Amino acid sequence: MNIQSIKPRRGRPPKTVRENEDTRTELIQSGLINLTENGFASTGIDAIIKQIKVPKGSFYHYFDSKETFGIAVIESYSNYFAKKLDKYLLDQSIPPLQRLELFVKDAKTGMTKHCFKRGCLVGNLGQEIDVLPSSYRELLIDIFVSWQDKLTLCLLEAQSTKAINPELDCHALAEYFWIGWEGAVSRAKLMQSTQALDSYLKHFVSGIKVT
Amino acid sequence: MNIQSIKPRRGRPPKTVRENEDTRTELIQSGLINLTENGFASTGIDAIIKQIKVPKGSFYHYFDSKETFGIAVIESYSNYFAKKLDKYLLDQSIPPLQRLELFVKDAKTGMTKHCFKRGCLVGNLGQEIDVLPSSYRELLIDIFVSWQDKLTLCLLEAQSTKAINPELDCHALAEYFWIGWEGAVSRAKLMQSTQALDSYLKHFVSGIKVT
Repeated sequence: MNIQSIKPRRGRPPKTVRENEDTRTELIQSGLINLTENGFASTGIDAIIKQIKVPKGSFYHYFDSKETFGIAVIESYSNYFAKKLDKYLLDQSIPPLQRLELFVKDAKTGMTKHCFKRGCLVGNLGQEIDVLPSSYRELLIDIFVSWQDKLTLCLLEAQSTKAINPELDCHALAEYFWIGWEGAVSRAKLMQSTQALDSYLKHFVSGIKVT
Repeated sequence: MNIQSIKPRRGRPPKTVRENEDTRTELIQSGLINLTENGFASTGIDAIIKQIKVPKGSFYHYFDSKETFGIAVIESYSNYFAKKLDKYLLDQSIPPLQRLELFVKDAKTGMTKHCFKRGCLVGNLGQEIDVLPSSYRELLIDIFVSWQDKLTLCLLEAQSTKAINPELDCHALAEYFWIGWEGAVSRAKLMQSTQALDSYLKHFVSGIKVT
């Protein structure tokens, strides 16, 4: 054993694989909260570790920089949101437009639960894009595209059941939904009310459905 | 003359009323650029004064805090945008829906000119609302309401000329437009492209117009 190998590591050393994973998960969870509530630029590593009471060395054991950490947080959010969209938008037992309503209902519940402090991580980071690491741009765009693809499937089903206008381009329409959705989430945060989400859904649907 | 009165002032003293106003205007202009590109939390007073090469004392001669400065910047943006909306949305010589197109065309030109680095100050600050001085919330909400009122007038004219569905609630529709618009501006910044603004306008109009 040489000197280098017995030099004390900074931060709490992970004792087992299990603990290792737990701390990493907790760091990401803390990142999700902090980045969603306060944005990337305003959030220091100190705030991330303070919330879960681990030393700074622990952070650097798992992530070599704030940039790498941010990517892990974004990927975690993306996975969480993809599952949510699959659950709501692709549920074949429910009529397609009703699925969209249920998704919005869930978003309203989530925003209310967190006192309108948390919006959408991807939307928030999109706003901050010019002060973020350049690698984030492509990552965020890809996530929006994946959401668009899922909603496209739902809208195509709505079209096949004649619930929406047959001439509509469902892919473009799905893009439109997500473009405006970020505005709706932002307004809900500002107003501390779900009214913007209701208004957004109502007008989006009334613009496309067959009456 | 007592000692207090001859004590040198910090920063460059304003020599005339004209210079006084010029420096204040330049500080606000620098604030508009910095706050729109980087947000409030990320922008320090140093960045504001660096851009126009005045000492920090000069800043504090005109504004007693970053909060007061931010309010002046928001009010300046609000006045600028109100004039823009009056010019585009209330121009009686042009059909109402075409006015909206011209407003979007102007926004596209503006975003392209600034390489998609500048979005909408009000929308950007809305995203940051939970890390901003609490007095900003009401201010931003009031600005959105004023935009909504102007667009409502335009849409009511569109309705009176039978260009849009007569059953639509123009006030609610105007709110919907601005809710989603902030999402569109944000996406345009992210994508570094005007395509999101085009998509937003196209779908908004196709959802309301009489075919």
